Amino acid sequence: MRDRVKALQASFRSELDGYIITDLINMLYLTDFLGAATMFVPNEGESTLYIHDVNFEAGLVEAKNCRVKLAKRGENLIKNVSEQIMSQKLSKLGFDKMNVQTYEKFRKYLKNTRLEAKSEYIWKLRRVKDEDELKKIRKAGELTVEGMRTAFEAIKKGLKEYEVAAEIEYAMRTCGSYGVAFDTIVASGPRSAYPHGGCGERKLRIGDLVVVDFGAIYKNYRADMTRTFVVGKATTKQRKYHAVVALAQEKAFQKIQDGVKATEPDMAARETISREGYEKYFVHGLGHGIGLETHEQPTLNPTSKDILEAGNVVTDEPGIYIVGFGGFRIEDTILVKKDIGERLTSGLHVLEAS
Amino acid sequence: MRDRVKALQASFRSELDGYIITDLINMLYLTDFLGAATMFVPNEGESTLYIHDVNFEAGLVEAKNCRVKLAKRGENLIKNVSEQIMSQKLSKLGFDKMNVQTYEKFRKYLKNTRLEAKSEYIWKLRRVKDEDELKKIRKAGELTVEGMRTAFEAIKKGLKEYEVAAEIEYAMRTCGSYGVAFDTIVASGPRSAYPHGGCGERKLRIGDLVVVDFGAIYKNYRADMTRTFVVGKATTKQRKYHAVVALAQEKAFQKIQDGVKATEPDMAARETISREGYEKYFVHGLGHGIGLETHEQPTLNPTSKDILEAGNVVTDEPGIYIVGFGGFRIEDTILVKKDIGERLTSGLHVLEAS
Repeated sequence: MRDRVKALQASFRSELDGYIITDLINMLYLTDFLGAATMFVPNEGESTLYIHDVNFEAGLVEAKNCRVKLAKRGENLIKNVSEQIMSQKLSKLGFDKMNVQTYEKFRKYLKNTRLEAKSEYIWKLRRVKDEDELKKIRKAGELTVEGMRTAFEAIKKGLKEYEVAAEIEYAMRTCGSYGVAFDTIVASGPRSAYPHGGCGERKLRIGDLVVVDFGAIYKNYRADMTRTFVVGKATTKQRKYHAVVALAQEKAFQKIQDGVKATEPDMAARETISREGYEKYFVHGLGHGIGLETHEQPTLNPTSKDILEAGNVVTDEPGIYIVGFGGFRIEDTILVKKDIGERLTSGLHVLEAS
Repeated sequence: MRDRVKALQASFRSELDGYIITDLINMLYLTDFLGAATMFVPNEGESTLYIHDVNFEAGLVEAKNCRVKLAKRGENLIKNVSEQIMSQKLSKLGFDKMNVQTYEKFRKYLKNTRLEAKSEYIWKLRRVKDEDELKKIRKAGELTVEGMRTAFEAIKKGLKEYEVAAEIEYAMRTCGSYGVAFDTIVASGPRSAYPHGGCGERKLRIGDLVVVDFGAIYKNYRADMTRTFVVGKATTKQRKYHAVVALAQEKAFQKIQDGVKATEPDMAARETISREGYEKYFVHGLGHGIGLETHEQPTLNPTSKDILEAGNVVTDEPGIYIVGFGGFRIEDTILVKKDIGERLTSGLHVLEAS
């Protein structure tokens, strides 16, 4: 693993004297260690990861690119970090994320220091996945496709939504998945019309639409995939809507490429859907970055300011949701490249299951 | 479901003119709706839930105890909420949780309004579970015990950690669990010595300690349970440590009761472990509240200021972690009552699996 702490230092050095990290996933990204902790990165030299008692021994073994200090229960960690900062006479600090209470405590100890939200420095790094990360996301993608294959085979009349989820998750787990990227969605019948329709006790019926949306995790990295199936034979109307969403997804995919505005693939999908008069049913953005978290930068929607870069991993997931009728969404996880993107999930483009 | 919004209003009315909620779980607690939103609760009259496009239609149907407004993409939601607050001439507001950036935006629009972190009002309610909540946590507890029974039967030489997790999660899912409360821990051999030892690709060997820690979710409510098993026959030393942790857990349980300081059960467990000279190996607090989130109030550790109340649901989970040897933890989810607590998970107090 390349030294991401050094990359972070190089990126903020011209503007900041140091950087406080409170977000555990950012620390995982930088040090390969996940656990309750706070991190301080000076603009040069060694960084310090203050790890709480419960995770300290694991951190000693696992944390890379930093030195590890024990943060004892009851100790005033914010005061101790502040003292380290003051002893180095640092006058301008950034941080990744902070709640108001923590911020005010830091302010109390760091009276003569500027302290500003500067999450962009860490996101500039995290947005572009390196080879080590891509290996893991690829694997998460493969496991996710295995889960979708299982869903396709499992779906049949009489099965409960959560029973479909059970089969999907078991298939992924036994193939080596570390868990699910978010609560698996198996939304059937009327609830398919809600983008986050959940997964409950409803039994599948012939003719139901079933939106199936989930992701595997492999060594902390995630993938995300959605397919929409019909239990039994699809109607002409279902086929029509499904085809529009499939076309919108493909049109968006064709635009996903290094250097392109993140609004463009969204627009390609939205125009395809508008052409049929369904724009009001596409109630969300096209997609989101994915990696250590399920929703990351960049964001692909009509108001995004992001520019796609090679190494971004994003979802392409247009949908149509008609309350009282049902919903359709098709989603894949895509690696942005210099030319056309690479699908890290694919296949199972079938409407009729069982 | 009782009107929790009214209960919140009654609780803060003497101090605050209104309350801003940004935490999605707090909104779920108050309105029974989970999705991207922001909520404003005035000190009397109707509250407003501003729901983003993607979840709006679901919110219209599901959100209780409030009126629902659409928060359109690109709209300045903070400005709109602030305008509503100003039109009502409210001068002192509390909020549950806020990051620095959101806080500073609110400050910009609410120049003549006091705005303070007051999460205690919502926690005072959430800490004490009502009958509807207890029904769900009880069910989550039952599902969790079913998972542990499966783990006990599955564990055998040669199986990988994640394969054990697969069996646990499949058993809970097919019995009706909605997912897992946190990443299932199956930490075997050396990694059992880390309290959050994860779950990887290691194959179980004869003589291994295996710490198994997980929880089911039922309708958003969680349970949490840990057992420590040995693959095959346990050694005298393993039996000794295990018995100390089991005794510490029981001693703590005997103290869990309405009106008791949250430090007391922790102290009961800690003293039991100290008596054997193992105090330095008990590197975390005794437990935590659990409900809609896996870690909630009250906190049971040596520095806690909490007082236990009937209706709290807490974990009782002492442990001993010896780097290079292995770890032991035994945990159950307990309902605090007027007299002795009620175990919402129980059984499987067996050291030797398979």
